[in-house]
Amino acid sequence: MVHETVVFEGHLIDSDILKKVFDRVVEEGGEFEVQEFRVGRTNDLPSFASVVVKAAEPQTLDRILEALAYLGASTATLGDARFAPAEGDGILPDEFYSTTNFDTFVRTGGAWVAARDQKMDCALVLRGGAPHCVKQGQVRNGEPVALRGAGIRVRPPERSREQSVFGFMSNDISAEINKTIAIRGTAREMKKTRETGERIVVVAGPAVVHSGGDVALGRLVRDGWVDVILTGNAFATHDLEKAILKTSLGVCQMSGRGVEGGSRHHLYAINAVNRAGGIREAVEKGVVTSGVMFDAVRKGIPFVLAGSIRDDGPLKDTITDMIAAQKAYVEALRGAGMCLMLASALHSIAVGNLLPARVRTVCVDMTESVPVKLSNRGTLQAIGLVTDVGFFLERLEAELR
Amino acid sequence: MVHETVVFEGHLIDSDILKKVFDRVVEEGGEFEVQEFRVGRTNDLPSFASVVVKAAEPQTLDRILEALAYLGASTATLGDARFAPAEGDGILPDEFYSTTNFDTFVRTGGAWVAARDQKMDCALVLRGGAPHCVKQGQVRNGEPVALRGAGIRVRPPERSREQSVFGFMSNDISAEINKTIAIRGTAREMKKTRETGERIVVVAGPAVVHSGGDVALGRLVRDGWVDVILTGNAFATHDLEKAILKTSLGVCQMSGRGVEGGSRHHLYAINAVNRAGGIREAVEKGVVTSGVMFDAVRKGIPFVLAGSIRDDGPLKDTITDMIAAQKAYVEALRGAGMCLMLASALHSIAVGNLLPARVRTVCVDMTESVPVKLSNRGTLQAIGLVTDVGFFLERLEAELR
Amino acid sequence: MVHETVVFEGHLIDSDILKKVFDRVVEEGGEFEVQEFRVGRTNDLPSFASVVVKAAEPQTLDRILEALAYLGASTATLGDARFAPAEGDGILPDEFYSTTNFDTFVRTGGAWVAARDQKMDCALVLRGGAPHCVKQGQVRNGEPVALRGAGIRVRPPERSREQSVFGFMSNDISAEINKTIAIRGTAREMKKTRETGERIVVVAGPAVVHSGGDVALGRLVRDGWVDVILTGNAFATHDLEKAILKTSLGVCQMSGRGVEGGSRHHLYAINAVNRAGGIREAVEKGVVTSGVMFDAVRKGIPFVLAGSIRDDGPLKDTITDMIAAQKAYVEALRGAGMCLMLASALHSIAVGNLLPARVRTVCVDMTESVPVKLSNRGTLQAIGLVTDVGFFLERLEAELR
Amino acid sequence: MVHETVVFEGHLIDSDILKKVFDRVVEEGGEFEVQEFRVGRTNDLPSFASVVVKAAEPQTLDRILEALAYLGASTATLGDARFAPAEGDGILPDEFYSTTNFDTFVRTGGAWVAARDQKMDCALVLRGGAPHCVKQGQVRNGEPVALRGAGIRVRPPERSREQSVFGFMSNDISAEINKTIAIRGTAREMKKTRETGERIVVVAGPAVVHSGGDVALGRLVRDGWVDVILTGNAFATHDLEKAILKTSLGVCQMSGRGVEGGSRHHLYAINAVNRAGGIREAVEKGVVTSGVMFDAVRKGIPFVLAGSIRDDGPLKDTITDMIAAQKAYVEALRGAGMCLMLASALHSIAVGNLLPARVRTVCVDMTESVPVKLSNRGTLQAIGLVTDVGFFLERLEAELR
Repeated sequence: MVHETVVFEGHLIDSDILKKVFDRVVEEGGEFEVQEFRVGRTNDLPSFASVVVKAAEPQTLDRILEALAYLGASTATLGDARFAPAEGDGILPDEFYSTTNFDTFVRTGGAWVAARDQKMDCALVLRGGAPHCVKQGQVRNGEPVALRGAGIRVRPPERSREQSVFGFMSNDISAEINKTIAIRGTAREMKKTRETGERIVVVAGPAVVHSGGDVALGRLVRDGWVDVILTGNAFATHDLEKAILKTSLGVCQMSGRGVEGGSRHHLYAINAVNRAGGIREAVEKGVVTSGVMFDAVRKGIPFVLAGSIRDDGPLKDTITDMIAAQKAYVEALRGAGMCLMLASALHSIAVGNLLPARVRTVCVDMTESVPVKLSNRGTLQAIGLVTDVGFFLERLEAELR
Repeated sequence: MVHETVVFEGHLIDSDILKKVFDRVVEEGGEFEVQEFRVGRTNDLPSFASVVVKAAEPQTLDRILEALAYLGASTATLGDARFAPAEGDGILPDEFYSTTNFDTFVRTGGAWVAARDQKMDCALVLRGGAPHCVKQGQVRNGEPVALRGAGIRVRPPERSREQSVFGFMSNDISAEINKTIAIRGTAREMKKTRETGERIVVVAGPAVVHSGGDVALGRLVRDGWVDVILTGNAFATHDLEKAILKTSLGVCQMSGRGVEGGSRHHLYAINAVNRAGGIREAVEKGVVTSGVMFDAVRKGIPFVLAGSIRDDGPLKDTITDMIAAQKAYVEALRGAGMCLMLASALHSIAVGNLLPARVRTVCVDMTESVPVKLSNRGTLQAIGLVTDVGFFLERLEAELR
Repeated sequence: MVHETVVFEGHLIDSDILKKVFDRVVEEGGEFEVQEFRVGRTNDLPSFASVVVKAAEPQTLDRILEALAYLGASTATLGDARFAPAEGDGILPDEFYSTTNFDTFVRTGGAWVAARDQKMDCALVLRGGAPHCVKQGQVRNGEPVALRGAGIRVRPPERSREQSVFGFMSNDISAEINKTIAIRGTAREMKKTRETGERIVVVAGPAVVHSGGDVALGRLVRDGWVDVILTGNAFATHDLEKAILKTSLGVCQMSGRGVEGGSRHHLYAINAVNRAGGIREAVEKGVVTSGVMFDAVRKGIPFVLAGSIRDDGPLKDTITDMIAAQKAYVEALRGAGMCLMLASALHSIAVGNLLPARVRTVCVDMTESVPVKLSNRGTLQAIGLVTDVGFFLERLEAELR
Repeated sequence: MVHETVVFEGHLIDSDILKKVFDRVVEEGGEFEVQEFRVGRTNDLPSFASVVVKAAEPQTLDRILEALAYLGASTATLGDARFAPAEGDGILPDEFYSTTNFDTFVRTGGAWVAARDQKMDCALVLRGGAPHCVKQGQVRNGEPVALRGAGIRVRPPERSREQSVFGFMSNDISAEINKTIAIRGTAREMKKTRETGERIVVVAGPAVVHSGGDVALGRLVRDGWVDVILTGNAFATHDLEKAILKTSLGVCQMSGRGVEGGSRHHLYAINAVNRAGGIREAVEKGVVTSGVMFDAVRKGIPFVLAGSIRDDGPLKDTITDMIAAQKAYVEALRGAGMCLMLASALHSIAVGNLLPARVRTVCVDMTESVPVKLSNRGTLQAIGLVTDVGFFLERLEAELR
């Protein structure tokens, strides 16, 4: 039997960490003994645990310890993180450490340094002496890549115990939830986010336009509740089509459904905007005089349109290369404190992959499947609301007025 | 500031109980201080916690203490449970205690007595000196009904930490789960349930027949893996229609869809079975010679068909009164150790309401919504599998062969 | 080769009938030749078709002709319908004719008589000399039951070609539909239905309360837009719980989720209402002073609560026997011109089974599955709206104000 | 009142065309009169209709006639198609004609010429004297673009009346469909497609791997049932991860769920494959020795991986630019006679946009929403199967063995 002692600190009970630690040890075939456990006596004080982990084989113990490191375990056997050079552009050494969406610290020269650009499924690369979370494909030949093992620690997010909607509704996904209360709580969190100076990110899918939620979203933009819009070609196209064609042709809006030849409309809208030179130019030239994109341009709110294989057109503003689009999303997410994911499976999951776990997230969708997927990724500060996005936006806008 | 000390015992970390305790105190506007916390040093040892709860108002403290009682808190201020007579048939005293699906103990004459027929949303009624969980509508005038407050304790189920599918997949609902492993784990649990002599309950919806899963389910019945079938008129009718009409008319089976006038088929099947005098009689008289109901009759497996407002016919075996049907379900669930819920929202939720939390449950459905609903009811020993029930049954049957 | 000539009259193209006729002949292994076809020259004029059907075997021809009869075919070989006595209570002669939801005519004594109480999956029973659609289980021993073959004709509904939402959105089920327009069209149809003196039926599930749609539904009731409410124990209980407990305890409404012991609330509400003697009595005695049920009682709107195996309580008003509940639904549906099905799979499908195909139906649900099921039953005058029922009701109420 | 006579030819009843013509005229505010209608007397003969369309305003008549042209109407007033030069790269003249997915003919120099590369939402561009369907973004400055109006005709697909699964199950989307029969019919169609020398396209999402359907899909590839695989980075990565890591680490496969740090696995797999130089090279070098991608490489089956904003890695084989990816998909779809869409919303809808309506399509998904979306696009030769893709593939493979 081999064994090692690990220690944990933080809101261990609230955050489920201790439970996960016990699970992992047993699942991997080990045993544990809790040497010491001091629970935070009040709501504000952290807990402390010291656990002896045992296993029959050294390899098993290693596997357990690696898993526990992802849960925030520190071992007594300290040491600097080890690095190996990338074997080529985008080619990592096999023993690379893969990041989570939890805050991560790397020990170099005896000091713990926080990783920058925290996001999951990245390599930890030393750039300018500091560890950065870098997507595999963007690691360059020869850059020092952190390896699994000593010298890397994470700080799992702690479930908030304060009286916030993220505290008590977190990971409660159901169509049966009281939506009025969840939306009111979302509004409250947006106000708090405003006060702390953090940014509010909106991820939007085309269903926002189909459900008529674009009107309320436009108002939120004008009223300063949105700092950046992450979306794709389809949302922007539908919004622009509604803006450009509603008065002239308007067939769609009259009959309520696609007409034969009705696909002309969105191609026509793309054509008009691209002829103007892009969305900003179309607004400036008076081609587009209403809609969410119009409001975003007028208000100076940045937006990023990521392309997809489904796209028509696309709009000139759409970034058709996915690597470039991911980089633009990452840039746009800097400073985010809160994220509204509105009826877009593709972009919501993309953004979920890029966000640190600490960002408060509200995911609105018609079925449980997207919220369930996001919640399975370990995002603790997330609410899933199964409702029509048009409903959500109208109510939210009314709460914030 | 008023305060009171409560103590908890059990697998407090594994079972999330301590987390819920902290949440509840803060949510209700109180504060807490952990006086003592001893964590079970190994996997087998229980933990112990002593917590001082404080609130500004006595009413707030009462509300918190009542909520904590549902989580298993014992207070120092002991006393017998209080009872008041039912005001009429089905009419409870207003201060009635409402049960959970956790094991419950009632203190009478200074001794803790386990409640019988544990199920949720019931009154605790003294019958023959012992507390029974009785559905509100079935409490009789004058019977002693337990009131909220002292003398009632629950023992929340503890999440199993053993290497079972219910240990590590519990409350993990996703279409992305590895189904092969979940089904293999289900088979293993069925074998264990067999060995301990507990019963395996199957709850089945008509989609079992539509998806062709009836063939595998029939084999499971024949091979002794099913102890009781809880379902409704529709499942039995579809199964019997397939059994009776496949060779003579068989139109449906050839064309794969409902034909004009095809509804005759299920009415015809009901007619033939009812003419024989019921399902058992139809099997004995050779009217029905195959199918799940046939196998159940031949094997002597009991089944309960609960009626619904949607039913055609109904079959003579269908219990059309819902109170009677609920009683029959309750009887049939006695001794259950495991429950397979197969593609039936109505009957699965009905059974979920009647089962103690300790019964291991596998819920198979095409969407996340039924598993999410069941998991929101606090069933810890449950897996939700988002897949086609035909697929599940074929694979499960192959694992058990 | 045997053959027979059948004729069809009506809006054959609009209603898809001719297409279905051709399909059915070919699917069943026959051939056809169109002898004559006169299309209605304008929107208002019916078409006429005379088709020779051929098959290799007389049995095949019979099977085809029976299928075509369900589509409205008349054959030259006229004759009265044949009847045979029911073999027992609820036991039909094997050759019984099974009804559709289309208007049906029975030839007796040389004259065509319209069947009463048109609904699907029924026997045609002569009562007082006239044919009635009677549920299998309610046919009495010895009553004359119509047999398959000559003397029975249906008139399939013709898809409306008028500028109504049922004309152009019919059977268009999609979350992408423009909901604003669909809801506006629904409001228009409700006004038309009012003008023609037909009744508007509302079928409601508990999600109406969860989503906050109860407020708008209550206003629709008060403003006279609802003639009857068909629902179950759960919707009424949630509505009454909200009415009774919101000011006194209100915990649920504050925290937005189920609390430990929170199930007390709905049991408490049932208890209070049952103690008063029922819903009407609870309103009269001031126990209930708000909510949809309150508004219905005050406005004198009838409601039917059908029980289900899932129910708690139940409320005294709930009909626990399913046969009795179906009869009460059938009574309540008399004179219905329009039906709103609001987020209740169980009751919507039950009502879909009881409605003639000509009743205009709007089905609102969070997923496509209920609308798809209803549309597969051949209801032509139906729209499926995939949205949150709270959203639908708020918008609809605003349109009708 | 202005009026014009239009004529239609084909299987007008089977294909719903005449119904749509009547709908459109009335919806747009016009009237019609059927001058002549000759229905095809037997299953094989086409019908002919001559319809006078009337409207109060010339503009209304124009709008109606344009809509009817999309339905295959030919007007007496013949003339060549009109063209105008593209105003810039990707900038069309405003009056451009937008294509459908129906076969399209363009009249130039008095002769009708079939458009090449038929797909929806394209411009019709003269290249080498022949009209081509060209995506808006790929039209080059100055190229002649066909304008709306005279000289363009479509031939709507006619619903097959033969005894095929696409004949009788078409646009029947339901979880209640008999899957055994639908899958058997799919197998039959695949055999027919083989015989006619057309190609079978498979579109696959990562759920194929999660559900264990990869084993059956690999066998279908080896047995020659698949001509091309269209997918994305995620499916290939999951398949390769399973191939590379199952024996060495295998944690995922043992525990059945994501482990902390488990995301390493797919990054590791991408790393290994990219280091080898790509998928083909990884197979050749023995890095990958099983799985669908392995089978495809060994069998010489082409595959196209389209990138998306969600991707990790990506694999070297993934086309990260969406314009390039669309072009590659279009190339790969040439000669397609049949398409299996397997649990991938993104790629299925992308391919649905690129396929002519005549290609027979089977769409398998866990919910109704993707099949409903595809069916709303007017694809007549399509079946939607709501089931687990693993189930579908296992059964299909068994049928084809």
